[in-house]
Amino acid sequence: MRTQVAIVGGGPAGLLLSHLLHRQGIASVVLESRDRAYVEHRQRAGMLEQGTTDVLRESGVGERLDREGLVHHGLELRFGGASHRIPLTDLTGRTVTVYAQTEIVKDLVARRLADGGDVRFEAEVVEIDPIAPSVTFRHEGAVRTLECDYVAGCDGFHGVSRPAVPGLRTFEREYSFAWLGVLADVAPSTDELIYAGHERGFALHSLRSPKVSRLYLQVAPDEDLAAWPDERIWSELAARFATDDGWKLHEGPITDKAVTPMRSFVAEPMRHDRLFLAGDAAHIVPPTGAKGLNLAVSDVTILARALIERYELGSETLLDGYSATCLRRVWRAEHFSYWMTTLLHADPAADDFARRLQRSHLDYVGGSVAAKTSLAENYVGLPLE
Amino acid sequence: MRTQVAIVGGGPAGLLLSHLLHRQGIASVVLESRDRAYVEHRQRAGMLEQGTTDVLRESGVGERLDREGLVHHGLELRFGGASHRIPLTDLTGRTVTVYAQTEIVKDLVARRLADGGDVRFEAEVVEIDPIAPSVTFRHEGAVRTLECDYVAGCDGFHGVSRPAVPGLRTFEREYSFAWLGVLADVAPSTDELIYAGHERGFALHSLRSPKVSRLYLQVAPDEDLAAWPDERIWSELAARFATDDGWKLHEGPITDKAVTPMRSFVAEPMRHDRLFLAGDAAHIVPPTGAKGLNLAVSDVTILARALIERYELGSETLLDGYSATCLRRVWRAEHFSYWMTTLLHADPAADDFARRLQRSHLDYVGGSVAAKTSLAENYVGLPLE
Repeated sequence: MRTQVAIVGGGPAGLLLSHLLHRQGIASVVLESRDRAYVEHRQRAGMLEQGTTDVLRESGVGERLDREGLVHHGLELRFGGASHRIPLTDLTGRTVTVYAQTEIVKDLVARRLADGGDVRFEAEVVEIDPIAPSVTFRHEGAVRTLECDYVAGCDGFHGVSRPAVPGLRTFEREYSFAWLGVLADVAPSTDELIYAGHERGFALHSLRSPKVSRLYLQVAPDEDLAAWPDERIWSELAARFATDDGWKLHEGPITDKAVTPMRSFVAEPMRHDRLFLAGDAAHIVPPTGAKGLNLAVSDVTILARALIERYELGSETLLDGYSATCLRRVWRAEHFSYWMTTLLHADPAADDFARRLQRSHLDYVGGSVAAKTSLAENYVGLPLE
Repeated sequence: MRTQVAIVGGGPAGLLLSHLLHRQGIASVVLESRDRAYVEHRQRAGMLEQGTTDVLRESGVGERLDREGLVHHGLELRFGGASHRIPLTDLTGRTVTVYAQTEIVKDLVARRLADGGDVRFEAEVVEIDPIAPSVTFRHEGAVRTLECDYVAGCDGFHGVSRPAVPGLRTFEREYSFAWLGVLADVAPSTDELIYAGHERGFALHSLRSPKVSRLYLQVAPDEDLAAWPDERIWSELAARFATDDGWKLHEGPITDKAVTPMRSFVAEPMRHDRLFLAGDAAHIVPPTGAKGLNLAVSDVTILARALIERYELGSETLLDGYSATCLRRVWRAEHFSYWMTTLLHADPAADDFARRLQRSHLDYVGGSVAAKTSLAENYVGLPLE
């Protein structure tokens, strides 16, 4: 069997790439190792940069996003018992939108199937040949080889695409904390996200819908979930979000509870011959800055543009620039995510000097228009090159 | 003997405090352990925030500063073989002025003596009583005690004032590099300061006058000056300042050569009973943001304001707020100086991830108006509270 672009991984990156290529008449096959229900229900990020919503909307998969997504014009930093709003739209002219990754995946799967797209679930890739090029996979009991012009590796951090690239240079940072994330059936206590920097640790109040709250607590990387009954979670959240003017956190039934590790990771380059890495397969950011999904979308947007140029004009200029173009944006997001993380988390290894610097830094960001603008322009996402 | 304010240390902080108090009819005695020639000739900083020049000018000691100081409207970041100007005045409406600390000291000594001020050189303080209060010192072979209402400890990092405060909490950071600074009799190769971030290490091109250049190289903290003959200094400077478009560094005779250590240090609080610490006696910043002298000036400006309120209105409100007011500004400068230092220096302990982050950070600062404004507003100095 043969296609133009073999796409390894059916998460938002692989599905969106397949969709963007299809709109320009370029054929692809998406090979996803999990089943459809799993892919459509795994809890992931949910804060979309304006550039991300623009791509979805302009490519015709933004209908439900426009209907159900919650457009945000600001966020709140909370520290020292007080609130400090970052008016994202006033400072940058741009917005962000709360719309869960699972919903984007559902929209893209539905659209690919409606358009006759070839999306194979439970298709386990066993070998990628970046040079020939081809992808060998096991599906419905048979092993088959998909020949192609190009392979897109969109199969995440633990996927098989990155190991298929010889001689990658990797960059990594581990953190001495993780996030305990919960979903709760309670109306959010806030209209905008609250990023709280507290000496007990970071906390984030996010939201999924007008009836569902998404909340996070900084915990140890090896934290035992059994030590966190619901009452402890609510009381710790309340302590970290507390303000001097008595802000109240609404409690409700917790429906999901999980520990998210924090890691920074980049693999360079993002291309080897005919194999192109995109999204988490090439890079990971800690979640504080909500950049992971947005980077995956910008990677495949850049890749789709390059492949379209290749097929329509016969030019490989954009393909040749793919890795460098993506990596500039990736490193900007890596730096911003690291910056937001260290600004807001309590580092157990920090000395008194580092803690005072951190507080001065927070006070400055809360008080300077220039510093707020810098945070805001990174948060809403810098424009694609 | 008796005065209103005993001032320990005759550097810029102590002399300016004495001058500001005198203008409001408050008596002081300045006790300086070194002789006048030493104090007037030790090489120190020379970049004045607008707030610093404002204080000097408004208090009537700005005549020579206005005549000889070089007003700057921008600075240059140099990295990756290219120049990135930070237009300080366009971004903040403020300027900075190059005028060496030694010149300020000469102006202040001359002015205090012309005004009949009591400035005693070679007066070694042997005891400070912060409670009685008094200062005991050795001068011209005799030991005398100066009784007073208040003591100002302006005698620098190695002075006797800070040890006179019991139970101070200190915060400190050492760096794995130092600066090799040279004075050279050659016209500066640039009109504005150049801060160069290079993988070989940081370099700074500053200036003293139209005929004298001040240049710095990042070196190891234990660097042996004997390993740095003039030719090596010029060739290393040329390598770190090199641009892709062939920028040229002018060479000339080196007249002074010294290694400056880098340290961050803060002592809290800055007051104990009747003893008030100011300037380097209470805090040290690495020289990268040129904040040390400016912080000393803002400390004594705040202290003078508070003492004037005390003597004119009988209120101790500003004196009671002195430490907290200063420390907010001190920690801002500590954070900024740390930030500039880590942005621009090659840390021998940095891993590949940290180096990539640093480069992305530099690219961002060089390209974002918000980030440039943030650097600029800190560099020109935030307003006094």
